[in-house]
Amino acid sequence: MYYIGIDLGGTNIAAGVVNEEGKIVKSGSVPTKRERNHSEIIKDMAELVKNLISEAGLKNEDVAYIGIGSPGAIDSKNGVVMYANNLNFRMVNVREEMKKHIDLPVYIDNDANCAGLGETKFGGAKGAKNSLTVTLGTGVGGGVVIDGKIFGGTHNVGTELGHMVIVRDGEQCSCGRKGCLEAYASATALINQARSAVARNLDSKILELANGDLSKIEAKTVFDAMHAGDEVAAKVVDNYLEYLAEGIANFINIFEPEVIAIGGGVSRQGDFILVPLREKVYKRVYGGVTPPVQIKAAELGNDAGIIGAAMLGAQY
Amino acid sequence: MYYIGIDLGGTNIAAGVVNEEGKIVKSGSVPTKRERNHSEIIKDMAELVKNLISEAGLKNEDVAYIGIGSPGAIDSKNGVVMYANNLNFRMVNVREEMKKHIDLPVYIDNDANCAGLGETKFGGAKGAKNSLTVTLGTGVGGGVVIDGKIFGGTHNVGTELGHMVIVRDGEQCSCGRKGCLEAYASATALINQARSAVARNLDSKILELANGDLSKIEAKTVFDAMHAGDEVAAKVVDNYLEYLAEGIANFINIFEPEVIAIGGGVSRQGDFILVPLREKVYKRVYGGVTPPVQIKAAELGNDAGIIGAAMLGAQY
Repeated sequence: MYYIGIDLGGTNIAAGVVNEEGKIVKSGSVPTKRERNHSEIIKDMAELVKNLISEAGLKNEDVAYIGIGSPGAIDSKNGVVMYANNLNFRMVNVREEMKKHIDLPVYIDNDANCAGLGETKFGGAKGAKNSLTVTLGTGVGGGVVIDGKIFGGTHNVGTELGHMVIVRDGEQCSCGRKGCLEAYASATALINQARSAVARNLDSKILELANGDLSKIEAKTVFDAMHAGDEVAAKVVDNYLEYLAEGIANFINIFEPEVIAIGGGVSRQGDFILVPLREKVYKRVYGGVTPPVQIKAAELGNDAGIIGAAMLGAQY
Repeated sequence: MYYIGIDLGGTNIAAGVVNEEGKIVKSGSVPTKRERNHSEIIKDMAELVKNLISEAGLKNEDVAYIGIGSPGAIDSKNGVVMYANNLNFRMVNVREEMKKHIDLPVYIDNDANCAGLGETKFGGAKGAKNSLTVTLGTGVGGGVVIDGKIFGGTHNVGTELGHMVIVRDGEQCSCGRKGCLEAYASATALINQARSAVARNLDSKILELANGDLSKIEAKTVFDAMHAGDEVAAKVVDNYLEYLAEGIANFINIFEPEVIAIGGGVSRQGDFILVPLREKVYKRVYGGVTPPVQIKAAELGNDAGIIGAAMLGAQY
């Protein structure tokens, strides 16, 4: 049996035909053109699915269902996007709209929840009953799995893990509060921290690698400079990991999962960040009579959302 | 049918015979004398239960089971206290030890978890599928109920809600970290905050009510002074609620429960703290497309642990 997983993003709709082993056997994408009406976007999504099924040499009866990961607040029970800021969706019944175009069951959940489910079924948290996937990107996304199921809170709008204040009255966060983890531990935050450090240390290798242009600094630039022996970069990364560790230690004290999987581009640094991160976390966590929570890199990268969405059917 | 609930504390073992409606029909307590060997303490606990059953005019067959709320890290599945600092228990199989003295099924869980369960079944969070009970006492205790069941993490040592850093590099916490919620929002923290404020404002009513002795200030003293119109006290309470709100808003963003029940002596202030607290929390929480999380006072007071422990049997 096969499953369709869709990662409905603000820029692109990416989808894949996923097999029982969690492998994407056929994938494709179309631009979202998010300024359009939801009906048009959903019609394109259905067309993409039909094309993928056909390109994979399959028929509808070979596919168990379509799973969709969407940004925003999702009523998974009813298949409704209640609100998604970067899609202009308000109370859109995606399940019903999809059914107008294709005759397959449709499941939908929040995209960070899907990524967390994907990592738990087939990625960095594979085999864990309880896991957190913390994705460090433009923001900090959270996917929580408890007893093998997505945990989303009462109306599935919880696990906004990035919006936990760790520095009261700290950096302004996009959510309106000050000092959220997202304002310190997202890739965006790392870039801002690097820019500030470089402005005070113009001889840093970071600036050289960014061709002397502060606005060209990316997360990778900072790590590349660190690997090249730049002390400013090493300090920026160390400081960044201190904040991240503060947040991860909070999550461990709160959830005590088996595994925390760190996703996003930052996690591609592997042990360069995981080894110091673990040290910083373990000295902070409460207790110590049970096995330590494993801190690992997420493994599915950008496919986590598609693979997780393709596993939604067993969730409800 | 009746249930025995036990609140095994560092000072006293308190127990009650609880009926189907969650009412304690007979209660009693004996001193823990915690310096003793665990076998002696557990024997006393069993004796207390036997006496209560008899005093209530019941027989063993009228009692479904014994539920115990214990401090520390509890392996509920196996009935073992893995570690409890203020009892000197290390890997003590309480279930087996109890069975030596009394022939009834024995369940055991963490005391804060039991209090959360009690509040969810019969107290401030009654009827909620998902709830958090945050108890503001010497420390800040957390009891999390998800889908009607205690959530404790993988080895039941999670939901240490007081040990979430909200002020990085802030006040020293007993757990070793700096800036935990407990260091700002426990009753102990309120008292410390009041002492500092009074030391700068010796004409505060707080000091008068404490008979001029800083060390006599209690949480209630601060609230009494506030009610008597003391501005210093009002400021201390407002500042305290700011920190508490920061923590509660974090919990809402993380768990999105239906209800957060605030327990501990502070919660006896009712609307005097709940009204400003709600205002401070709601302006902080993420999103806003779903019904707001209710913030209520816990209702069972010191009985929450006994009543919750008496409900443990349906948990596993």
